[in-house]
Amino acid sequence: MKKRLKYAMVGGAEGSFIGPIHREAIRLDDLADLVAGSFSRDEKQNISMAQSLGISPQRTYFSWEDLLEREKSNIDFIAICTPNDSHYAIAKKALGLGINVMCEKPLSLSLKEAEDLGKIAKDRKKILGIPFTYAGMPMVKAARDLVKSGELGKICKVVLEYSQGSFRKIDFTKPLDKRNKWKMDPKKSGPSCVVADIGVHGAHLIEYVTNLKIKEVLADLSSFAPGNRLDDDASILMHLTGGAKVSMVVSKIATGEENGVRLRVYGDKASLYWNQEENNYLTVKYPFGPDRVYKRNAPYMEAVHNGHKNFSRIPAGHHEGFIEAFANHYREFCAAVRGEKNRDFPGAGEGIRTMKFVEAALLSNKLKNTWQKL
Amino acid sequence: MKKRLKYAMVGGAEGSFIGPIHREAIRLDDLADLVAGSFSRDEKQNISMAQSLGISPQRTYFSWEDLLEREKSNIDFIAICTPNDSHYAIAKKALGLGINVMCEKPLSLSLKEAEDLGKIAKDRKKILGIPFTYAGMPMVKAARDLVKSGELGKICKVVLEYSQGSFRKIDFTKPLDKRNKWKMDPKKSGPSCVVADIGVHGAHLIEYVTNLKIKEVLADLSSFAPGNRLDDDASILMHLTGGAKVSMVVSKIATGEENGVRLRVYGDKASLYWNQEENNYLTVKYPFGPDRVYKRNAPYMEAVHNGHKNFSRIPAGHHEGFIEAFANHYREFCAAVRGEKNRDFPGAGEGIRTMKFVEAALLSNKLKNTWQKL
Amino acid sequence: MKKRLKYAMVGGAEGSFIGPIHREAIRLDDLADLVAGSFSRDEKQNISMAQSLGISPQRTYFSWEDLLEREKSNIDFIAICTPNDSHYAIAKKALGLGINVMCEKPLSLSLKEAEDLGKIAKDRKKILGIPFTYAGMPMVKAARDLVKSGELGKICKVVLEYSQGSFRKIDFTKPLDKRNKWKMDPKKSGPSCVVADIGVHGAHLIEYVTNLKIKEVLADLSSFAPGNRLDDDASILMHLTGGAKVSMVVSKIATGEENGVRLRVYGDKASLYWNQEENNYLTVKYPFGPDRVYKRNAPYMEAVHNGHKNFSRIPAGHHEGFIEAFANHYREFCAAVRGEKNRDFPGAGEGIRTMKFVEAALLSNKLKNTWQKL
Amino acid sequence: MKKRLKYAMVGGAEGSFIGPIHREAIRLDDLADLVAGSFSRDEKQNISMAQSLGISPQRTYFSWEDLLEREKSNIDFIAICTPNDSHYAIAKKALGLGINVMCEKPLSLSLKEAEDLGKIAKDRKKILGIPFTYAGMPMVKAARDLVKSGELGKICKVVLEYSQGSFRKIDFTKPLDKRNKWKMDPKKSGPSCVVADIGVHGAHLIEYVTNLKIKEVLADLSSFAPGNRLDDDASILMHLTGGAKVSMVVSKIATGEENGVRLRVYGDKASLYWNQEENNYLTVKYPFGPDRVYKRNAPYMEAVHNGHKNFSRIPAGHHEGFIEAFANHYREFCAAVRGEKNRDFPGAGEGIRTMKFVEAALLSNKLKNTWQKL
Repeated sequence: MKKRLKYAMVGGAEGSFIGPIHREAIRLDDLADLVAGSFSRDEKQNISMAQSLGISPQRTYFSWEDLLEREKSNIDFIAICTPNDSHYAIAKKALGLGINVMCEKPLSLSLKEAEDLGKIAKDRKKILGIPFTYAGMPMVKAARDLVKSGELGKICKVVLEYSQGSFRKIDFTKPLDKRNKWKMDPKKSGPSCVVADIGVHGAHLIEYVTNLKIKEVLADLSSFAPGNRLDDDASILMHLTGGAKVSMVVSKIATGEENGVRLRVYGDKASLYWNQEENNYLTVKYPFGPDRVYKRNAPYMEAVHNGHKNFSRIPAGHHEGFIEAFANHYREFCAAVRGEKNRDFPGAGEGIRTMKFVEAALLSNKLKNTWQKL
Repeated sequence: MKKRLKYAMVGGAEGSFIGPIHREAIRLDDLADLVAGSFSRDEKQNISMAQSLGISPQRTYFSWEDLLEREKSNIDFIAICTPNDSHYAIAKKALGLGINVMCEKPLSLSLKEAEDLGKIAKDRKKILGIPFTYAGMPMVKAARDLVKSGELGKICKVVLEYSQGSFRKIDFTKPLDKRNKWKMDPKKSGPSCVVADIGVHGAHLIEYVTNLKIKEVLADLSSFAPGNRLDDDASILMHLTGGAKVSMVVSKIATGEENGVRLRVYGDKASLYWNQEENNYLTVKYPFGPDRVYKRNAPYMEAVHNGHKNFSRIPAGHHEGFIEAFANHYREFCAAVRGEKNRDFPGAGEGIRTMKFVEAALLSNKLKNTWQKL
Repeated sequence: MKKRLKYAMVGGAEGSFIGPIHREAIRLDDLADLVAGSFSRDEKQNISMAQSLGISPQRTYFSWEDLLEREKSNIDFIAICTPNDSHYAIAKKALGLGINVMCEKPLSLSLKEAEDLGKIAKDRKKILGIPFTYAGMPMVKAARDLVKSGELGKICKVVLEYSQGSFRKIDFTKPLDKRNKWKMDPKKSGPSCVVADIGVHGAHLIEYVTNLKIKEVLADLSSFAPGNRLDDDASILMHLTGGAKVSMVVSKIATGEENGVRLRVYGDKASLYWNQEENNYLTVKYPFGPDRVYKRNAPYMEAVHNGHKNFSRIPAGHHEGFIEAFANHYREFCAAVRGEKNRDFPGAGEGIRTMKFVEAALLSNKLKNTWQKL
Repeated sequence: MKKRLKYAMVGGAEGSFIGPIHREAIRLDDLADLVAGSFSRDEKQNISMAQSLGISPQRTYFSWEDLLEREKSNIDFIAICTPNDSHYAIAKKALGLGINVMCEKPLSLSLKEAEDLGKIAKDRKKILGIPFTYAGMPMVKAARDLVKSGELGKICKVVLEYSQGSFRKIDFTKPLDKRNKWKMDPKKSGPSCVVADIGVHGAHLIEYVTNLKIKEVLADLSSFAPGNRLDDDASILMHLTGGAKVSMVVSKIATGEENGVRLRVYGDKASLYWNQEENNYLTVKYPFGPDRVYKRNAPYMEAVHNGHKNFSRIPAGHHEGFIEAFANHYREFCAAVRGEKNRDFPGAGEGIRTMKFVEAALLSNKLKNTWQKL
C-alpha cells in the first residue's frame, strides 16, 4: 500500500477556480492529505476556507512565508494556486527550503524567473511540477505516442485553436470581479494576459504531441475587451524544428466558446484531430482509408499508448475530463516525489519553454509582427 | 464546516468496476471517510484491498455480517457494491441494525424483496439510496426541469436506447472472468441480466425526466451471447400515464457500443435529446425555431434548472461525467443522512418502481410479448 | 452516347413536394426529357405547371387516362407523383398499355393491389420502379455490401428510427393545406398514414441493408396530431429471418425532427451506424478497434462497395443527398428501360414486400399488438 | 414561363472535375441548354465529350476562338472551365464579342488581368460571373444576413480553415495525372497554387459573410508536396476594415481532410460557426444563452435570411450541397443575363478583390512575411 503524502496549499480560497480543482484531483485518487494552508490574503476568507477543509487553526497561516518555514518538515509538497504575480516568489522560497512544488501555470512572469526556478529545483534536487492540464488527458498522451510511432509520418502542419469567450461573459458596466480583475491587470498577471494564461497551454500541447520544438514565433495580439490593457486575442504563426508550420489562435473574446481547444496535426501519412470538449476521443485521418475514432480506455488503446490504462479510471463510454487530467499529473508528480524516475508530467523544463514562447510572442507583436526566435 | 461522515463498504475489491467509483465519488467532494470494509469473500483479496485503502486490520472483516454488527455505532452509512444476489440480505440487515444504506442497483432480485427493504427503511427511519447514475448528471436534471416547466408541452413519445457492446468484448473460447460470469449466472444475477442491469437505468431515467409513470410494458428479450442463459438484448414498448408511448432498446450485445444511453423525449411543443456519451450537453428542438444546445454549468443554466450550479464543480467547456454523477448522488444522500429533507437522489421508491418494471418485462416476454401492468 | 429517353408525368403540380424532385433528378444526369404531362386535377394548375416546364398545350392532359392512351407510343416511361389513392389505377393502366412506370411509394393502398401490379408488370415485361429514396444513397449501398461481405458477422439486432416533426409544424387552428389534408385522409391515403408513408422506407431499408426478410411484426400505433384519424406515430418490433430482432420507431409527431432516419445494425463482429441527415458518412464500430468513418466517394470506397463511384458525382467532402439518390434510382431504372439487366433499384418486389409489412403492422395494432406474419 | 437560355462551354472534358458540375448545376433547375462546346485541346476527347452531351459535330469546336466567333449570336453565355492560364484570354475575347461569361475562379493569373476583364465587362455591359461555390450555399447567405442584422455585434475575429488533403492522395512515384500536373505547374496555374486555387474561396467567404474588406495580409507559404514548385500550404493573417483580425489556413497537404472549410466569426455579442462538410447547418453561439443550430430551409429561416427559400429546393432534414450551390449562382447569373438587377452572385468585383488578395499574399511571403496592403 502506498502511504498518502501530506501537502499544503497557497491560494485557492472561495472564488478561486483552480484551487478546488487541485484539491479534488488529489483526493480523487487518494494521493495526499491537505494538512496546512494559506488560502487568501483576506484573513476572513483564509480562515473560512481552512475551516471548511478541516485544517486546524494552528496550521492555517496568514502569510505563506510562515507556512513554508513552519511546515517545511511536515509536508511532502505544496500546491501554488495564487495569481500569477506570486508564483515565482513562493516557488523560489519553497524550493529553497527543500519543499517540492506543484505550481500553477504560468510558472512566472518572466523567462528569467522561470530559468531561475529551474536552476534552484535542479540544485536542490526538488521536484517542480506545472499542471498543463491537457497533457494529463489520456487521449493527448495517445496522440503523442501515435506521432512518436510514425503513424502520421513526417509532421508538416499544426493548427491549434484555444478559444474562450470568458471576457464576453463580463458585464463591463459593473466593477470586475477579483479573478477577471487580476487577469487584466499587468501588475498581477505580468505583461501578457491571453498568451500567458492559455497560449502557454497551446505551446506546450504542440511540443508535447509533436515531439518537435518551437523555433520561432510571429504574433499578432489584440485587446478587444473594453478597458483591457493586456492581450486578449492572438493569432500566432510558428516554425517548428524539422520544418513544420503552425497556425495558432488563442482568445478570451471568442464569444460563445467555452474551452475550445482544438488541435490538428498533419503528417505526410496521416493526420490527427483532438478537441478538448470531446476529449475522450481522438480521430486519425488517412488519405486512403476511413477515419479512425479512438476511444479512451477501449481495450485496444494500450497498444496505441503504452501505459494508457494507468491514466484512466473508468471504461470507454464514460467521461473523464479536467479533474482526472489534474489527478493524472498529480499521480505522476507524487510518484516523483516518492523518488520514482521518468514520470510523465510537465516540470521546470516545460515551464521555461513556455515562458520563452510568451516572451518571443510579446516581442514579435511589439516589433511589427516579425519572427522572433525562442 | 461540514464534518466528514464515516462509512464502510461491502464488496468492491480488485476487479470490481463499481467499488472504486463509489470510493472516488465520495472522496471527490470529501464527503466521508472509509473506515471499515468487507471487500471480498476471497480472504487474500479482502485483506489486500483493505491495506491499499489504509483500512486497519481490526476493521477489515471477512464476513459482512460481522462488519455490520461491530461497526453499526461507528459508521454513518454503508456502501453495498457486491453482486446482485447479496444486495437484499446485506441491505436488510444493515437497515435492521439502524445503518443507512447506499446500495448498487438493482436493489434486489425480486420486487417482493425491494418492497421489503422499502418498508424496513421506512419503519427504521433510515436512508436507503440507489445511485441510478444518470439522474445524478446535471443535464439530466435540467432535462427534467425543462419538462416540468412545460417547455416541451404534453409528452407524447419517448425513445430510449441503452446499448452496450460489453458481451462482444468477451473471448468465449476462454473461461469467463468473474464479473461477466456472475452477470450471466441466474444464481448471482437473478432472473434477468440486461433488463435488471441496465434496463432499470432506462426505466428510471424515463420516469425521472418525464415525471410520468410506466403503466404497462411489452418486452421482447433475447440471449445472443454464446452460452448466455439470461437476457442480453431487449426491445421494450411501454405506455406511460397521460398517454405517452415509449420505445426502448437495452442491449449488451450492441457490438462496438460503449455506454450508449440516448434519450429522446417528444412533447407537442418541443423535444429534447440527451446522449450520455456527450452528457454535458442537452439539445432542445422546436418546430418553429433553431435547435438549442444547452451546456452544463453555463451561466444561463440556473434559470433552466434550479440549483444547477450545486451539481457542478467546473465551468462549461470542461467535462464532468460518471464519477461526478455518483458524487452528486452521494452529496445528496449524505445531506439526507445528516437529516436534511427533500434531497434529490434515488431511493427505495425508485428501487421498487424499477423492480416492478423488471418483473413486468420478464412476465411479458414469457407470455408471448403481451402487455403487463406495473 | 446514350440517347435521352422521353417521359411523361402524372401529378407533381405547384405545391407537390415529390414532383419537382423527380424532374430535377432526371435532369441532373440528363437522362430523359419530359414531353407530356397531366400535373393536376385543377385545370388552371395543370396548365400553369405545363407552361412553366415548356410542355406544349397539345401534350398537356387534363385526364391521365388520355395522357396514357395518346402518348403510349411516344414515351419510354411515366413518373407517377400523385396522392397515394391513385397510384394503383394509373400504374395498372400504364403497364397494361405497355408503358414502363416509376411510381411513388406506397405502390398502392393494399397488398392485393401491389401484387396485382407486380403480376401485370411481369406479364407485360414492363419495368416498374419505386424510388425508395435511401436505397439510392451511396453509403446505404456501401452498408449493404459491408453486411454482405461478412464484415459485421451474423446480424442480431437492428434499431431504426424514422422521426419527422412535420405534423408539429401544422397550425391546426386553420384549415389544413392540401398535402397534409390528404396525408390524414383515409380516402386519399388508405388505411395508414405514418406506416404507409415512411414506415415503408424503414422496412425497405432494413431488408435492403441486412439482406434478411421481415418474418413477423408487432406494432403499437397512435394518432397524436389533433383531429388525425390515421396513425402518425408507431413503435414497431420485428423478427427477421435468421433470428435478428428489430426495434423501429416511425413518427410524424417527433417535434423538432426534420427527416431523422437513423439506422443501427449490430452483428456479432461489428456494427454500423448511418444517419440520413449526415448521409455521406457511414460509421462501422468494432469491439477491439477504433470506429471507422467511411466517406462517400473516397478513394477506398470502391473496395467496400463495388460500383460505388458510379453512384456518385462529386468527390468526398462535398454533399450529395436526396436529389442525387433519386437520380441514382432513375439512372438504374432508365438503364433497365433500355434493356439492361440486374440494375440496382427497387421495383415491384419491394413494393409488395413493403405493402405486406404495412398490412401486418395494421393488423397487429388492431389485434392488441400481437405478432403478425408477413 | 421562363424560356431556357442557350450556352456554350470551353473546357470540361473527361477528367475535368468542374466541367460536369457546371453542366449538372445548369440542368438541375433547367436554366439553359448546352448548344456548343470546345471541351478539350485533345481532339479525340473533345469530340467524345461533345457526342456524349448530344452536341452536334457542327457546333463542336477544336478552337475556342472559333467557338466564340461563330456562336456569339446564338448563345446567351459561355461557361469557362479550363485550367487557370486560359481564363483571361477566353473571357477577354468573349466579353469583347459581347458574350456574357461565367468563369471559373481564379478569374486570371494576375490582378492586372482581372482588372482588365472587369473594365471590359463594364464597358461592354456584359455579365461576368465567378462561381465562388460557398457563397451559393443558403446557410452562408444566412450567416451574412445574421451579421448584417447586428446579431453578432461588432466583428472582432475571424478564423477560417480551408484544408484539403488532395496532394496526399497522389502517388508521387508515378507521373502526375493531368489535373494535378497543371495545379503544380506555374505555367498553367500562375504564380500560386493553394492560395489562388482555394485561398480565394476563403478570402471571398470572409468578405462576403462579414461585409468587411481585407485591408492587409501577412502570409507564410510552404511547398510540402514532393517536387511541387508552388505553394500548397499557407498560414495567413489579415486585418479587416473596422479592426477585425483574421487567422486563415489553406492547405492541400492536410492529410485525411476532404474539403474542410470551417468558418468562425466572433462578434462582441455572438459568434457563428459554419462547416462546409455539414453545410446545411449554421450554429450561433452566445455568452448568455444556449447555442442555436439553424437548419437550411426550416420554416423560420426566411426570417433570418430574406429570400432563403428561393435558394433551396428541398425541405430541412435533406441535404443540398455543392451542385445546388452552383445552381444557385447560375440561377442568379441567368437572371442577370435576362436583364434583372441586383442579383446575388459573385462577379468581376469579387474576382478583382480575390486577385488583390493573392498578389498581396505572395508578396508578403516573398518579403519575409510582412504585412502587405490590398
